[in-house]
Amino acid sequence: MLRINNFEYSSRVLLGTGKYPDFDTQKAAIDVSGTEILTFSVRRMNIFEASQPNLLEKLDLAKYSLLPNTAGAKSAEEAVRIAKLARASGLCDMIKVEVIGCEKTLLPDPIETLKASEELLKEGFTVLPYTSDDVLLARRLEELGCHAIMPGASPIGSGQGIINRLNLSYIIEQTTVPVIVDAGIGTPSDAAIAMELGAAGVLLNTAVSGAKDPIKMALAMKLSIQAGRLGYEAGRIPIRRYATPSSPVEEMSHK
Amino acid sequence: MLRINNFEYSSRVLLGTGKYPDFDTQKAAIDVSGTEILTFSVRRMNIFEASQPNLLEKLDLAKYSLLPNTAGAKSAEEAVRIAKLARASGLCDMIKVEVIGCEKTLLPDPIETLKASEELLKEGFTVLPYTSDDVLLARRLEELGCHAIMPGASPIGSGQGIINRLNLSYIIEQTTVPVIVDAGIGTPSDAAIAMELGAAGVLLNTAVSGAKDPIKMALAMKLSIQAGRLGYEAGRIPIRRYATPSSPVEEMSHK
Amino acid sequence: MLRINNFEYSSRVLLGTGKYPDFDTQKAAIDVSGTEILTFSVRRMNIFEASQPNLLEKLDLAKYSLLPNTAGAKSAEEAVRIAKLARASGLCDMIKVEVIGCEKTLLPDPIETLKASEELLKEGFTVLPYTSDDVLLARRLEELGCHAIMPGASPIGSGQGIINRLNLSYIIEQTTVPVIVDAGIGTPSDAAIAMELGAAGVLLNTAVSGAKDPIKMALAMKLSIQAGRLGYEAGRIPIRRYATPSSPVEEMSHK
Amino acid sequence: MLRINNFEYSSRVLLGTGKYPDFDTQKAAIDVSGTEILTFSVRRMNIFEASQPNLLEKLDLAKYSLLPNTAGAKSAEEAVRIAKLARASGLCDMIKVEVIGCEKTLLPDPIETLKASEELLKEGFTVLPYTSDDVLLARRLEELGCHAIMPGASPIGSGQGIINRLNLSYIIEQTTVPVIVDAGIGTPSDAAIAMELGAAGVLLNTAVSGAKDPIKMALAMKLSIQAGRLGYEAGRIPIRRYATPSSPVEEMSHK
Repeated sequence: MLRINNFEYSSRVLLGTGKYPDFDTQKAAIDVSGTEILTFSVRRMNIFEASQPNLLEKLDLAKYSLLPNTAGAKSAEEAVRIAKLARASGLCDMIKVEVIGCEKTLLPDPIETLKASEELLKEGFTVLPYTSDDVLLARRLEELGCHAIMPGASPIGSGQGIINRLNLSYIIEQTTVPVIVDAGIGTPSDAAIAMELGAAGVLLNTAVSGAKDPIKMALAMKLSIQAGRLGYEAGRIPIRRYATPSSPVEEMSHK
Repeated sequence: MLRINNFEYSSRVLLGTGKYPDFDTQKAAIDVSGTEILTFSVRRMNIFEASQPNLLEKLDLAKYSLLPNTAGAKSAEEAVRIAKLARASGLCDMIKVEVIGCEKTLLPDPIETLKASEELLKEGFTVLPYTSDDVLLARRLEELGCHAIMPGASPIGSGQGIINRLNLSYIIEQTTVPVIVDAGIGTPSDAAIAMELGAAGVLLNTAVSGAKDPIKMALAMKLSIQAGRLGYEAGRIPIRRYATPSSPVEEMSHK
Repeated sequence: MLRINNFEYSSRVLLGTGKYPDFDTQKAAIDVSGTEILTFSVRRMNIFEASQPNLLEKLDLAKYSLLPNTAGAKSAEEAVRIAKLARASGLCDMIKVEVIGCEKTLLPDPIETLKASEELLKEGFTVLPYTSDDVLLARRLEELGCHAIMPGASPIGSGQGIINRLNLSYIIEQTTVPVIVDAGIGTPSDAAIAMELGAAGVLLNTAVSGAKDPIKMALAMKLSIQAGRLGYEAGRIPIRRYATPSSPVEEMSHK
Repeated sequence: MLRINNFEYSSRVLLGTGKYPDFDTQKAAIDVSGTEILTFSVRRMNIFEASQPNLLEKLDLAKYSLLPNTAGAKSAEEAVRIAKLARASGLCDMIKVEVIGCEKTLLPDPIETLKASEELLKEGFTVLPYTSDDVLLARRLEELGCHAIMPGASPIGSGQGIINRLNLSYIIEQTTVPVIVDAGIGTPSDAAIAMELGAAGVLLNTAVSGAKDPIKMALAMKLSIQAGRLGYEAGRIPIRRYATPSSPVEEMSHK
C-alpha cells in the first residue's frame, strides 16, 4: 500500500503520459501497467484551449489520480503559477514540483524547488518535488512538509538507471514520507533495484513510452516493481566474497 | 516458451531444492515460484537408501522435470558416475554437469566439465553443463552438443549477481541452445538483468532458500524473471549521456 | 598548473592534516605527496591556546598554502565565525567552507553552504566550498563567485571512491573555476579517475592518513594524480563493445 | 621487482609495439614508459624477409627483453610453429602464447592455449599465456609450469578496463608466478586498479598507441602502474557505508 498524504494506492507504479507513439498505445500501456497515478505536464494540456487535441481525452480519468507536473518551469514563481493553473482546472489533487535548472541535463534547481515547494505547501497543495539525490536537500524538502520525495535516478530520459544507490538508500533511510524514484529508469531491473533499496514507488515515462513495444514494457515494469518490492520485504541473502554451497556436504544423506 | 532438447516449459525459473529452513517452506516456495524444473544434488538424495529421509518426498514430483546435478564431483569420472546413478534411479531426463575445481570459489573446472559433458552426451543424456562465463568454453560446450549452457553469474551462493554482463551477452549472442544463468544471483533485479540480456532462464537456489522469507522471495523471482523477459522482448530505450525531455516543448499544445 | 584565484600551484594534490598516527609520519607523508596546499580544521588548531600541542608545529608552514576548513560547523553562521577566526590568526589566504548537515553521512548542507559562501565572498575571502555532486548547486556556487568547487566523491572517510562519475563530469563541463574532488577517495585509482574526468585537483585525507603505510600511500597518490592528469590530456581510446586487434592483419609484413 | 622465470625487471610495464602512428612516436612512447619488455607479433616481423620494413629497427633492442606473441594463431599447432620461428630468429627468450578463438571478441581459446603452453614448456620456452579470467583455467596453466599468467581485463583494444575484479583477485590469490593483466586496459586508472588488486604487471598496447598523444599516455601509464603498486603495498583504508570524520571531535585541541 502506497500512501501519499491522504491518498492510498495499491500500485507502486506512477506513469507519465508523454511521448507515446499514439493515443491507443498510450491507453493500453497505462491499463497494462496497473498504475493508479498518471503524471502529465500542465503546459502540454489543453486545459484552457478547447481547440487543442487533449492528450488525456481517451483515458477514463475517473480511474486515476492525476499528478500534474510543472515541467517547463525554470523558477519557483513559474512553478507556482503552473500549479495554480492546474488546480484551477479542477483536475488534480496533487502537484509534482519540477523546476529544471539546466536544459542539457534537465536536472532540478535545488533552491527554486525548495521555494516552490514551500509556497505550494502553504497554499494547501499535496506536494511531490522532483529533486536530485542530494541527501540533505531531500531532508529539507521533507522538513518543509512535502508529501513525498522524488529523487532522480539519473537524468530524465537517459535510461542510465540508478547511478548512486548509496544516496538513494540514505534518502530512504532518513525519510518518513514515501520516496518515489523519478527519472532515469531504463529497464525493468532498474525499477526493481529502486524498490529493493526500499523505495515506495517508481515514476516512469520514457522507459515505457520510448520502448519498441510500450505496452509490453508497461507490463514488464509493473511486474518488476512488484518483484522489487517483494524482494525488499523478503530480505535478500548477504553478499559474500567466496562461494557457499547450495548442497552442503553436512546435509548429505549418503555418499 | 523455454525449450531444452525435446522438453518445453512455460516457466523460465529453475529452482534448486537445497538449504530451505524446512520441507513446508521448500514446498511452498517451489509452488509459488511457478518453476517446472527442480534441480537437486544426486549425492544428497536417498535414492538407494530407503532408510534416509527424502528431501523431495513432500513434493508431487509428477508436476516437475527433475534436473539432478553432479555436485560434489571433482572430476569428469565422478560426474559421469553420479549421472549414471541418477539415471539408474529412473527419476530423471536431464543432467546438470557440475564439476567443481576449487572448494573456496566453487568455480567449475573447465577441462573436466568438457570431458564429462562429452561422455554423457555419448551416453544419450540431455546435458546442461554449469560453466564459467568463459566465452570460448561455452562455445566448445555447445559444439559438443550440450542442450543448454549454464554460465555462472558469480560464485555459487555469493549473491554478487552478474559481474560480467559483457561475457554473458557474448555467450547469449553466439549460442543457439538456451543459455540459463546459474549461480550467484542474489536479488530479483539480478535475475531480471540476466533475462534482459537475453538469457533463456535463470537457475536459483540460495537466493530463495536463504532469504529471510523464502516463499515471498520465490514469488519475487518469478515476477522479476517474467519482467526481465518481457523487457528483453519489449526493447529498451537507448542509454544517453544527456537528458531527453518526456514532455518535449515541440509537442506542447500551448505555452 | 592549478590556479585558485590569484594563487598558482604546480601540484594538484591537496592534503588534509588529520588523523595521522604521529607527527613524523604526517610530516613525511606531506613531503612525499608533493602537495602545496594543506587543509586543516580550524577548530582543531590551538591558534588561540598556546598551551595546546600544535598539530602543524613540525611543518615548515612557509612552504605551503594553508587551507583552513570550517569542519564542525552546522550552520552558515558557525562557518562564517570559524572562517573569521582563521583569518584573524593571520595564517590563511583561503577558506574551505564545510557545513555538515548530517552526523552519519557527513554530507554537506546545501543551503547553509550557499549562505556561508556568499557571506565569506562578500568579506573578501578566497572561498572553496565542499559540496555534494548536485550539478545545479555547484553551478550556483560558481555563480556566487566561489574560487573553486569541491564536490564530494562519496562520504568523507568512506573510501568508496567516485560513485557518480556522470555528475562529476557534468560539473567539470560547466565550471570555469577549478573543480577539486573532495572526500571519499580510497585508492590511487580513485584519484586517477577524478583526474581523468578532468578534475583540476584532488583533496585527500583519510585515504593517506588511514593507510597502513601513509608515507607510501602519499607517494602513490602523488603519482596517480599526475598519471590521471596526463591521461586526461593524452586523450583515451574510445570504449568499444568488441575487440580491435593490436596487431592487425593488414599491417603484417608476411604470413 | 618483477621476476619472470630467471629474468628480473624493475619496471612493471609491458608494452606492445603495434599500431603506433609512426616509428618516432613508437620509439618515444617506449622510452617514456620505462618498459623493459616489448611484445610484438611474430607474424608481423620481417624476421625472414630482409626486404620488408622492420617495425622494431629504430629501437635499441639490446635495452629490452623481447616477448614475441603468437597473434594470428587459431590452434595450438599454429602457435607452436610461430613460437619456434621466433626462437629460430635468435631474438627472444620468452613467448606469449596467444590462441584466439573468436574474430569478433579476440578472446582466447582455452583448450588450444593449454595445449600450446604444454608443448612449448616441453620445448624449454619461457611461456606466458594470454588467457581469459577463468579462475580454474589460470590454475591449470600454472600447474603446467607457465612462467606467468596473463588474464585479459576485457577484450583486446576495447578499452573497457577490468570487468571482473573478483576473478582477477581470485587468480592473483591462487597464483605463485606473476599475474600480468593483458588486454582491455583503456586508462591509467584501469592499470592502477589492476596493480592495486595485486597484479605483478600490466601489458598495454592500444591504450597507448591509440591515444591521441601516445607519448603522454605512455608516461601516464608508467606513473599509474607505479602508483597502483605502491597503493597495493601501502594498504588501502577499508570501505565503509557511512562517513568517518577526518577531523574527529575527540582530537580537538579546543572548541
